[in-house]
Amino acid sequence: MIRAPIAALAPGVRALPSDVSHHLCRVLRLRIGDRFVAFDPEARVEADVTIDDVSGDAARVTVGALRPARVVAEAPVVFVYALAKGDKVDAVVRDATELGATRIIVARTSRSVVKAEGDRAAGKIDRWRRIAEQAARQCGRADPPAIEGILGWGAALEAAARESDARWCLWESATAPIGPALRDAVARAAPLAFAIGPEGGLTQAEVEEARVAGFAPASLGRFVLRTETVAAAILGAVLVLRSGDATS
Amino acid sequence: MIRAPIAALAPGVRALPSDVSHHLCRVLRLRIGDRFVAFDPEARVEADVTIDDVSGDAARVTVGALRPARVVAEAPVVFVYALAKGDKVDAVVRDATELGATRIIVARTSRSVVKAEGDRAAGKIDRWRRIAEQAARQCGRADPPAIEGILGWGAALEAAARESDARWCLWESATAPIGPALRDAVARAAPLAFAIGPEGGLTQAEVEEARVAGFAPASLGRFVLRTETVAAAILGAVLVLRSGDATS
Repeated sequence: MIRAPIAALAPGVRALPSDVSHHLCRVLRLRIGDRFVAFDPEARVEADVTIDDVSGDAARVTVGALRPARVVAEAPVVFVYALAKGDKVDAVVRDATELGATRIIVARTSRSVVKAEGDRAAGKIDRWRRIAEQAARQCGRADPPAIEGILGWGAALEAAARESDARWCLWESATAPIGPALRDAVARAAPLAFAIGPEGGLTQAEVEEARVAGFAPASLGRFVLRTETVAAAILGAVLVLRSGDATS
Repeated sequence: MIRAPIAALAPGVRALPSDVSHHLCRVLRLRIGDRFVAFDPEARVEADVTIDDVSGDAARVTVGALRPARVVAEAPVVFVYALAKGDKVDAVVRDATELGATRIIVARTSRSVVKAEGDRAAGKIDRWRRIAEQAARQCGRADPPAIEGILGWGAALEAAARESDARWCLWESATAPIGPALRDAVARAAPLAFAIGPEGGLTQAEVEEARVAGFAPASLGRFVLRTETVAAAILGAVLVLRSGDATS
């Protein structure tokens, strides 16, 4: 069933917000009489909705009875992500939200290219929160991940460690493959945490700091991946490893 | 060990191409005396290289004896990807190259937004090949994936089916989770194929066409993922499922 976000969701007849209407009626091609599930990301409620009328990007709908929203991330996955240049964090927040991350902590490392402190840091965090909310809406997820930061590398690792039982620092020079340990951790339903360095790489000291915080240095294979590819790949792996066990 | 591409690689003293030099000496911060592995993507040979001198983006190196290049994709993974709008195919080609896809077949479906035929299609294929070569270089992979297309959906499925033993059509309305079957297929080292629809979705008839070609409709979970996220997630899963088995 298609899911779409509607703020201040309430039963009865109403007009859809134009962006939601565009997505449902233009992109997904729903027609009069079609049904979808609307959810309110703030209130965490949802309802069955029927499309009564469509005209351009305007649609009128009937919202049924509210019930608690059900589609949320299955289990904790915390992401420590080193501040990278350009819009890489944007892309990672979007991917990680779709792929079920429950918390993203943005960190500063010695090779992070971007400097962001004070007001500029707060502005960035706001931006990433909006991106996470939008991505959650688009993928039908009721619980966008918490976005925190911008913390120092050590503080970020510590915060992530407090709510995880199995932790890895994905590092291009690590020799241990992540596969066997990750498969074990998912099998025992451990809350997971991953730390990913910036594109300039982590320093040996930062990798050591991660190891001390319980993040085992691990490799995703012999190719050197961009940091944003690492994020999607590792979360995709978690999704597939959990798939069929958690839902069956 | 860091890997970098050098065309027409030969033993002896030479200047690095400026883009390679920039990547190694500026981004990765190699210094005089540091070593890396250079590979020639065309000739599939590689060599140990020592940096003799660095000045701005110019670097002089000594290339050691040539040997066959070793870092290639581990096993066949074919991707049928429906033509999507904007630069989504670019992103998928880049991600899929880093994550070990061996063949990418771009297909047309009835909801593909972009129309590309004749010269325009050939231009696009050329562009995607260049992106795959560049992504392979950057991730240290000696064998960029083959890029083919633009084929009809049925022809693309057929081409992919000929060289795979386990096949899925990732579809947001599928009820079967992909996890258990994919884990089994990787465990028996089956050549894999995945088909992914455009962002407007596959029609019921196209899903049925895929099923007939042996692509089981499967879901990556309850969130509706963007098509480019699906690609990275599923290949990341394959990488992790193979990790530790294939390399140990």
